[in-house]
Amino acid sequence: MYRSQNLRIPGPTFVPQSVLQASARPLINHRGPEFSALLAGLTRALQDFLRTRNDVLLLSCSGSGGMEAAVANTLARGDRVLVFSNGAFGERFHQIARLYGVDARRIDVTWGRAVEPDLVRDEIAKEKGKESAKAVLITHNETSTGVLNPLKEIGEVVRDSGKLFIVDSISGAGAVETEVDEWGIDVLVSGSQKGWGAPPGVAIVTMSQRAWKAYDRSDLPKAYFDLQAAKAYLEKAQTPATPTVTVFIALQESLKLMAEEGVASICERHRDLAFATRRAVQALGLGLFADEAYASPTVTSFRSPTRVDARNLIRVLRESYDTVIGGGQGRLEGQIARVGHMGFVTLQDMVTFVSALELTMRDLHQPVEPGQGVTALLKAYEEATQPPPKPKAAAARTATLARR
Amino acid sequence: MYRSQNLRIPGPTFVPQSVLQASARPLINHRGPEFSALLAGLTRALQDFLRTRNDVLLLSCSGSGGMEAAVANTLARGDRVLVFSNGAFGERFHQIARLYGVDARRIDVTWGRAVEPDLVRDEIAKEKGKESAKAVLITHNETSTGVLNPLKEIGEVVRDSGKLFIVDSISGAGAVETEVDEWGIDVLVSGSQKGWGAPPGVAIVTMSQRAWKAYDRSDLPKAYFDLQAAKAYLEKAQTPATPTVTVFIALQESLKLMAEEGVASICERHRDLAFATRRAVQALGLGLFADEAYASPTVTSFRSPTRVDARNLIRVLRESYDTVIGGGQGRLEGQIARVGHMGFVTLQDMVTFVSALELTMRDLHQPVEPGQGVTALLKAYEEATQPPPKPKAAAARTATLARR
Repeated sequence: MYRSQNLRIPGPTFVPQSVLQASARPLINHRGPEFSALLAGLTRALQDFLRTRNDVLLLSCSGSGGMEAAVANTLARGDRVLVFSNGAFGERFHQIARLYGVDARRIDVTWGRAVEPDLVRDEIAKEKGKESAKAVLITHNETSTGVLNPLKEIGEVVRDSGKLFIVDSISGAGAVETEVDEWGIDVLVSGSQKGWGAPPGVAIVTMSQRAWKAYDRSDLPKAYFDLQAAKAYLEKAQTPATPTVTVFIALQESLKLMAEEGVASICERHRDLAFATRRAVQALGLGLFADEAYASPTVTSFRSPTRVDARNLIRVLRESYDTVIGGGQGRLEGQIARVGHMGFVTLQDMVTFVSALELTMRDLHQPVEPGQGVTALLKAYEEATQPPPKPKAAAARTATLARR
Repeated sequence: MYRSQNLRIPGPTFVPQSVLQASARPLINHRGPEFSALLAGLTRALQDFLRTRNDVLLLSCSGSGGMEAAVANTLARGDRVLVFSNGAFGERFHQIARLYGVDARRIDVTWGRAVEPDLVRDEIAKEKGKESAKAVLITHNETSTGVLNPLKEIGEVVRDSGKLFIVDSISGAGAVETEVDEWGIDVLVSGSQKGWGAPPGVAIVTMSQRAWKAYDRSDLPKAYFDLQAAKAYLEKAQTPATPTVTVFIALQESLKLMAEEGVASICERHRDLAFATRRAVQALGLGLFADEAYASPTVTSFRSPTRVDARNLIRVLRESYDTVIGGGQGRLEGQIARVGHMGFVTLQDMVTFVSALELTMRDLHQPVEPGQGVTALLKAYEEATQPPPKPKAAAARTATLARR
């Protein structure tokens, strides 16, 4: 029997058929002119999307490898750094730094809440008198909880401190406004399988001039993740080791689709769909896990109904309704579920998801009327996208115009 | 105008359409049951192909990442190791070890010649009295020169010494006889895009019990390449970070095709085609670069005609005949060309290549008659595969039978 699966985990995301087909083209020589043109084009396109003139380097690994590259290429053994963490990926960043012998102090924020700029300012102030921390490491979009940290405002604080600003934007960039140069981001890491709508296998890393200076004094071992080697090879439009050619080709194709839509529209679409998704989830009587003021545009987390293990809800969604969402990570396992709406996501995708969630809730004997969630989704989407514009929507539109 | 490209670099190889199509299937959840079944099946299939009961761990990177994992997971800072090198990849192995602060002594063998077991024995003997070397690192199939090192015999020497035996078989395993357990290989590294006939993006690493003991005393930093983490996740049929899902699926598909043919037939096919290719190259008046006694079954290197830069020959092959082969690496650039015949390669592929090489030679004003190379190829292939069997072929057949 034919069954179509609705993949709604927070990455890898759904990948459009044209992107998948591009990745299935016959292999090419990674030291030949076709790949060189591909790599040069990808690099330029990513600079545009990330709004940066910094180097953009592509590594053949997933996002975690990019995080490791960010650490290994800019820090030295014993360096003091501050890691602001409000979820599993903040903890991972801290763990990677520690594994390399970096003196990483982790500042924990309650999961589901954002890292506030004031906290960053206070913690940086506490460092005075001690051997000053070299860098601030932070997650942009915390996939494990569905929180978007206010990176722009945090960036202002970090810039004032003179410290290196190292950002994991694996599940943010490509879907969420990301201004590398304007926000003073020295190193930003992203991953092909998240907002970029391609399969996993390419990590994207930007390096500022300050980051390259830090490279020169970095003494951590790196070979596969050596960004200077990546830069040297990029100058001849190659990569040091064999790249994940098929994923590079897919990424090229997805960037073409994204360029047609435009970065401002993409970010708006994510915000609107996230808003509508939150309203639908609440309309079904489910509690949002993340602080809504900082709710992620790419992943929505919600609590399981009382006396229902989230793993059970996720299982019913998958087994009965072919809808695949993520569960809680670490301490949140069984407590929350996470639905991804990043990359090439449409309103129709979310209608499909919400209808499956409705049916699942009914199967779990929850008081839900047919259409309750879908109606809330559609109403909220209309509210977010139709005139009369809300002040927020108007501001976003002005920003879009200003950019042209 | 339609032009079909004949990709004959020594990896990434040609990938069959069915394998490419498999990699273009809709994405799946890397934490769900489909991926778990895939990973468990892949691991078992690779154990069969590599003839090992050791752990087989899959990393989402290319072969060089696997080499780094081999070093970072088994050695400690300041450990003394011997690296036997007869080409660019031997040098890479040495460089990776050095970057990690390992006291790696490189024993260089003339490029194009093999590392002989006696050399390994002598060099190990020289270590007596010094702080004994912990490990021997060696390339199985040196892609840069087209030499297959006699790993079985070297393995006997290394085993007698009690040292850890760490092998880069990136372009060997899957196409060339590789007996991990029988030859006492503690760590073997391979890559999906070589003999396995899949796209790049999965490195394969085997770990013996002795290698795991070495892990426990290893103090080199590793996160993305941490094999203990990979093993812990494998126990629940997952990977620590997001895997290159599409490449994993492709590899599963190519292993199915390989299992239909059988490992003994695959190895025989590579030997026979390599033999025929060497005869064809020589029939065109080109000199073989590698010592024929140790010529690689997966890549044949040959010298450019006198007064012809190999880069020019490679360019004409590509531009006029859509045939893409590799050039010399490092000090061999411009001197040699390398044609790959690994993975899903057939006699017809090599006929196509040799005919293109013939035409190229004529374009370069070399004295070549039409059909000269192709005739030699076909005759040599017949000689290699038809009765009366050569003693070598007979021995191979007996080995095949014994294994059943």
